[in-house]
Amino acid sequence: MGAREYDVVVIGAGAVGENVADRAAQAGLRVAIVEDELVGGECSYWACMPSKALLRPGAVLRAARAVDGARQAVSGGVDVEAALARRDRITHHNPLTHHHDDRSQVEWLASAGIDLVRGHARLAGRKRVHVTQAHGRSLDLIADEAIAVCTGSRPHVPDILRDIQPWTSSDATTATRAPSSLAIVGGGVVACEMATAFADFGTAVTVIARSGLLGGMEPFAGDAVRDALVARGARVRTGVRVVDAVRSESGASLTLSDGTTLAAEQVLVATGRAPRTDDIGLESVGMTPGSWLEVDDTMLVSGSDWLYAVGDVNGRALLTHQGKYQARAAGDAIAARAHGAPLDLRPFGTHVATSDHRHVPQVTFTDPEVASIGMTAEQAEEAGIRIRVLDYDLGWLAAASTLSDAYRGCARAVVDEDRGILVGATFVGADVGELVHAATIAVVGEVPLARLWHAVPAYPTLSEVWLRWLESYGRP
Amino acid sequence: MGAREYDVVVIGAGAVGENVADRAAQAGLRVAIVEDELVGGECSYWACMPSKALLRPGAVLRAARAVDGARQAVSGGVDVEAALARRDRITHHNPLTHHHDDRSQVEWLASAGIDLVRGHARLAGRKRVHVTQAHGRSLDLIADEAIAVCTGSRPHVPDILRDIQPWTSSDATTATRAPSSLAIVGGGVVACEMATAFADFGTAVTVIARSGLLGGMEPFAGDAVRDALVARGARVRTGVRVVDAVRSESGASLTLSDGTTLAAEQVLVATGRAPRTDDIGLESVGMTPGSWLEVDDTMLVSGSDWLYAVGDVNGRALLTHQGKYQARAAGDAIAARAHGAPLDLRPFGTHVATSDHRHVPQVTFTDPEVASIGMTAEQAEEAGIRIRVLDYDLGWLAAASTLSDAYRGCARAVVDEDRGILVGATFVGADVGELVHAATIAVVGEVPLARLWHAVPAYPTLSEVWLRWLESYGRP
Repeated sequence: MGAREYDVVVIGAGAVGENVADRAAQAGLRVAIVEDELVGGECSYWACMPSKALLRPGAVLRAARAVDGARQAVSGGVDVEAALARRDRITHHNPLTHHHDDRSQVEWLASAGIDLVRGHARLAGRKRVHVTQAHGRSLDLIADEAIAVCTGSRPHVPDILRDIQPWTSSDATTATRAPSSLAIVGGGVVACEMATAFADFGTAVTVIARSGLLGGMEPFAGDAVRDALVARGARVRTGVRVVDAVRSESGASLTLSDGTTLAAEQVLVATGRAPRTDDIGLESVGMTPGSWLEVDDTMLVSGSDWLYAVGDVNGRALLTHQGKYQARAAGDAIAARAHGAPLDLRPFGTHVATSDHRHVPQVTFTDPEVASIGMTAEQAEEAGIRIRVLDYDLGWLAAASTLSDAYRGCARAVVDEDRGILVGATFVGADVGELVHAATIAVVGEVPLARLWHAVPAYPTLSEVWLRWLESYGRP
Repeated sequence: MGAREYDVVVIGAGAVGENVADRAAQAGLRVAIVEDELVGGECSYWACMPSKALLRPGAVLRAARAVDGARQAVSGGVDVEAALARRDRITHHNPLTHHHDDRSQVEWLASAGIDLVRGHARLAGRKRVHVTQAHGRSLDLIADEAIAVCTGSRPHVPDILRDIQPWTSSDATTATRAPSSLAIVGGGVVACEMATAFADFGTAVTVIARSGLLGGMEPFAGDAVRDALVARGARVRTGVRVVDAVRSESGASLTLSDGTTLAAEQVLVATGRAPRTDDIGLESVGMTPGSWLEVDDTMLVSGSDWLYAVGDVNGRALLTHQGKYQARAAGDAIAARAHGAPLDLRPFGTHVATSDHRHVPQVTFTDPEVASIGMTAEQAEEAGIRIRVLDYDLGWLAAASTLSDAYRGCARAVVDEDRGILVGATFVGADVGELVHAATIAVVGEVPLARLWHAVPAYPTLSEVWLRWLESYGRP
């Protein structure tokens, strides 16, 4: 059986792989994409989308209860069954067959002129992929120009918890009912979001984190999320780790490092991610299976002139939007190289994912929401930048008083004093998720503070925090 | 009685006057501010704040009803009495005395080192103000450097409606109950916001507009607001005007230009604003009472070297946030001139309100919300700019499906093709109010489209519309 020949072969048809394939195909290259699970990937079915779907009913009811005149029309909490059914609709999940439906994504690939190959892809030496398919069939693909590995990541389950078969994030996001109690091991975004969602569903939640919540973000973010969880009856145990775990009749029993024990019907492990590179044939090209794939800013794997690694798998920034951003740069770089066209590799040039380094936005859909871009104060100081920090209590804004009868929130801007621009911003509070893109444009656009004085925020919106920041900073 | 001497006298202690006074005082000038009503001004007590307070309960209940899993906890509509009481709390209104309390604003003036003079101020020749106070007292103020007129605007009531003593915007925002029926004359922001609020309160609303709704904005904005009002049972009559109005037993009866008549318990006139300059002594300095005051970009009145006009009164942009922006420029310009310091009068310089011309943001808190910045496509074309229009249906975004089970919205960006930057953007949909500041920073910051490709929107937020715009535009 002969091999099929393409210009580009993409391994993994999540959002990242789709975008690499799309950019390359738009540039006239012949592209195949290989997927052994669902077209659309982790994010659509098991991560971002179901988690946001689970969180929205609770968030919108909290918002209504916080407004006198609306509060009177709200009684009771989230209808869990309806919320789960809505989650299924949003993620195209059929609760009868327990399958997700990826037809719309498959149709999109066809319309974009990308060949879909179903099966498990493994690299088979330079520019070659071997695909193992159903019913014992297999297929070889040759990539004349490039192969892009877009296989993403999977939850990392610590050895000590493996035997009790805990939930991972995808089990939590696809849950078919709310457990009576849930112990969440980890303090990051997944842990905090799922703690929020299951607390909304009436589950008794305990978060177990080695350090504080939302590490890597400004400290006030994790503090606010912890306080809100506690105020709603969840338990947050920080500074402890799990030292023993056993299955019990009613669920699981965990022993913590401080000697206490904890019983829970279900345990969710959210302690980080590992690259899905252990079974993709890395050994055929002299690389180590299971490792993160180091790349340059065009996503070309170090030492290679044809192998790209895009998205979670390169470990640069494990976020869907950042992976898609890398995919646009990589797809365009692959196309330019294939066509012998010049590449723009300068910072923020066409073919590089410069923003991965210091310009990554993130929105955490907890209560309160946390939205951030760029460097925290600590990160900027570590980078040797002379900074000034601007903090403002969002509750003091006119908009806050109209939004909620008890608005609590805080926003920090980090100014690079030598360059007169923002290098980071963090917003914590209800409805701050859409505030961050303004900061992203200011930081990435390197808009001088003197010019930001002329970017007038509309009254009364939460965006007036920009005015407060600038007034406290003074005219540059 | 001798006159009191200051460096700067500000007439009108609304948000705009307060900001002029504050900037001048911060620069070390002696400042008096004269006010014959409430410190804090129209916006705090009778405009932005109460209107947003009235609109929020309905908005947040609509949001909850649009999410399965939350919907089940919502029964009934806005509790009107509670909503009105909340409005009173937010605007510091005492429903027993029917007075607003401006103590916190008065205290702020004192803390800022600004002298408050209660009374009615009239210009009395060059650099002189005569203040008529209670109990037959009066006082003269001399301004060594500058006088700033910040008296704002009042609703314009057409002659044909004057006899029936209709509501103006401040009557609507301070209403103590919801009328059974309300005819709203006008199709602008006030008309659309009050139509939305009173429809939420169960009032039978009819909007009567000479042309479409929200004129001056992108046409799809007014269309969406009209459709939503009609879907909720309001009547929207466009292309007609009131030709006769009489008081009736149960309220008022209006005759429209198409010959139809309309009865309503109450009539709200929202047909524009007039400058509050008819009784401020303009004649003493050779100017015409009742006129809009023409100014340069530092807010200096044409032909004068000491008289400034800031906020609505100059007719540049009748929005609180834009008036405050002018106030910062004017206050700093007054101080620089007083100190003999150099002025930066270049576009977007320290002492000019450049953004008034083509960079004005506005958020209309209707259902759906409308948020815009800069030029519409039509305005840009009229200005001779070679444009490309990018339209995107917000309902197609991943975020929309999590926010609401029936999200409807649309966003337009207007690109200046020669400069490779955005010159305008309009967002229509639920929760778009905070989206506009990103566009404001992009437009005012003149951030190139090529750089905007690196400003990654977080997934899944509505801000991903930026990605869709850029993808449809292509790499610059």
